Amino acid sequence: MLNDLIIIGGGPAGITAGIYAARQKLNTLLITKDFGGQVARKAVGIENYPGFEEISGMELIQKFEKQLRKQKIDIERDEAKNVKKNGEKFIVTTKSKNKFESKAVILATGTDPRLLEVLGEKEFLGRGVSYCVVCDAPIFADKIVAVIGGGNAGFEAAIALANWAKKIYILEYNPEIKADKENQERAKKTGKVDIITNIALKEIRGNKFVDSIIYQNRKTKRNFAIPLAGVFVEVGYQPATAYVKGLVDFNERDEIKVDFETFQTKTPGLFAAGDCNVGQFKQIVTACGEGAKAALAAYDYLQKQNSYIRTNS
Amino acid sequence: MLNDLIIIGGGPAGITAGIYAARQKLNTLLITKDFGGQVARKAVGIENYPGFEEISGMELIQKFEKQLRKQKIDIERDEAKNVKKNGEKFIVTTKSKNKFESKAVILATGTDPRLLEVLGEKEFLGRGVSYCVVCDAPIFADKIVAVIGGGNAGFEAAIALANWAKKIYILEYNPEIKADKENQERAKKTGKVDIITNIALKEIRGNKFVDSIIYQNRKTKRNFAIPLAGVFVEVGYQPATAYVKGLVDFNERDEIKVDFETFQTKTPGLFAAGDCNVGQFKQIVTACGEGAKAALAAYDYLQKQNSYIRTNS
Repeated sequence: MLNDLIIIGGGPAGITAGIYAARQKLNTLLITKDFGGQVARKAVGIENYPGFEEISGMELIQKFEKQLRKQKIDIERDEAKNVKKNGEKFIVTTKSKNKFESKAVILATGTDPRLLEVLGEKEFLGRGVSYCVVCDAPIFADKIVAVIGGGNAGFEAAIALANWAKKIYILEYNPEIKADKENQERAKKTGKVDIITNIALKEIRGNKFVDSIIYQNRKTKRNFAIPLAGVFVEVGYQPATAYVKGLVDFNERDEIKVDFETFQTKTPGLFAAGDCNVGQFKQIVTACGEGAKAALAAYDYLQKQNSYIRTNS
Repeated sequence: MLNDLIIIGGGPAGITAGIYAARQKLNTLLITKDFGGQVARKAVGIENYPGFEEISGMELIQKFEKQLRKQKIDIERDEAKNVKKNGEKFIVTTKSKNKFESKAVILATGTDPRLLEVLGEKEFLGRGVSYCVVCDAPIFADKIVAVIGGGNAGFEAAIALANWAKKIYILEYNPEIKADKENQERAKKTGKVDIITNIALKEIRGNKFVDSIIYQNRKTKRNFAIPLAGVFVEVGYQPATAYVKGLVDFNERDEIKVDFETFQTKTPGLFAAGDCNVGQFKQIVTACGEGAKAALAAYDYLQKQNSYIRTNS
């Protein structure tokens, strides 16, 4: 079956695109392995999505998903592994080896956590190393932990961890902290957070479980050890966008280049909304706005395609 | 007092910009004559703002306003009449002749209803002619009314009017209807809506109150009269943007030209978010997304300005 539109991804951008596409009566298939993307993993309550003074990521995404499912839209729980264009037709191949076809595609696959790539990171994954504070914070009740990364995500992770852990170190590679002032103040208020800047993490050590980390002071080049039980990695995200290689251009961070009005990529009919594109502002509400714009732009594209076909056949 | 940022407008774009700016600890003043903009006047329940399966415009905007007022932000109930730039400083003059100063400005004044400019329109304003279905629909219980304009706004107006009026005519200038298929189907389901296309409205007639309209069939050039009690004008919107003349470029509809990534106008430090800019997709969620982006871009602009000043003084 040839769909009008395939949306790949079930975060804020993909869900909003789905709501808009379905309401435009586009025959739409949404492919995603799960709903929520980064939002579902968010460590602290969300206070900057207009409409909710404070809401957990999980709760917000459940509202989004419920609203999506009220629409006439097909949902396939799978992972897109390849997107190709054959003439005017897009072919999406999934992990389960299914093939789906459509006249237009919106990419909204967000980003995945970036790895530290240090010794011990892979070895101790699930045994002290975590990429998800929401999932794993309670395991570290009354323990000492470190958060690697001094951006907003790192500070939000530390604030959330303060409900459980005894002490939290934030380790930042750069000499300055980049987190919002509000987040910095909140972390300070917990009385549990120590910030160490200008360091390079060298190793995560342990036996069965993590028991310490080794970091280097980048100025003095001296090494230090911190005894601890958990390491939370918050050094940013990078989009998994290799599955559309050839159809789009990337920047140096593998983000997809788009036109910022329509969110169309260099391939006509192929759009990219939310965190997977090159946009510098990556917020829940901006992802939603981009999803809506991409869906409406896809609708316009399909209207033009259809009238073109009609005129010439 | 020199503010970091002045936001002009209290609709979804202005409110979201306010929430984001305050959370970035910008010293922010928001100037607006009222909250809600078009949203507060929306005739039907909103079903496409992610997070709410169905919510009235008034209710959504009350949630937005409450969330804004939780932030540290100054709010001035007034109307901006002029924006000037003097060196690096913006000066905003209001209707009440107050002057406010800031280092950056976000314009978010949305749009005003476009007038028909036909005979009788001004004469019968408030006596049968209305630009606000939410406000005035109940007045027309069991009466015959016309909606001028066959876009989404016109169809949504007709659907809402169907709860009150006996019969609703939708009159459209163009030969085709541009409203969404979903809106067209809903209007049909009411069993009360008649659609007349390819017409030019000539006159609104009455004595003390409206009693009829005269329209011309654009093909045959013949004139027709419809006896009715109410005329709802839904022929679109145009932004009131004259107050920033000189600092920005406009398109032919008086919409403000912006860079679609940062929403900055041609004047550094001056941004325009939401319906007042040239963006083609004008939705609540897209306005919110643009407000957030403009606020974060204004924050970046101010950071650069400050470090510039520091380095050179």
